[in-house]
Amino acid sequence: MNTLILNVTGMRCMGCVNSVKNLVSALPGVASVEVDLASGRVEISHDPARADLPAIRQAIESGGFQVA
Amino acid sequence: MNTLILNVTGMRCMGCVNSVKNLVSALPGVASVEVDLASGRVEISHDPARADLPAIRQAIESGGFQVA
Repeated sequence: MNTLILNVTGMRCMGCVNSVKNLVSALPGVASVEVDLASGRVEISHDPARADLPAIRQAIESGGFQVA
Repeated sequence: MNTLILNVTGMRCMGCVNSVKNLVSALPGVASVEVDLASGRVEISHDPARADLPAIRQAIESGGFQVA
């Protein structure tokens, strides 16, 4: 497992946090997702052979959030 | 185009509203999505032959929101 740390903007409440968690967790190869609302820091533990950055970015952006 | 009106729970702020709008709008056959945060009312104009309720429900639930 690798750890990917992203800065995600557009999250305003715990509903948004939950949304990002759900969208990323649904990807194959993602083991865990931790989100800090205040900083926008999203830490993703994943198998890089199965879940790559473009797929993770697309999942986050599908919910209207942005990866900085 | 048909209009589908759903009651969606779990939205707490305009970020959540934006998330639901993005997730549903991305489906083929969806023409427009209007969301009222206070009531949870989501009004979806869609082609029922291309976007059916199970697909719409799945898109909303992928973001961690619930269709009542």
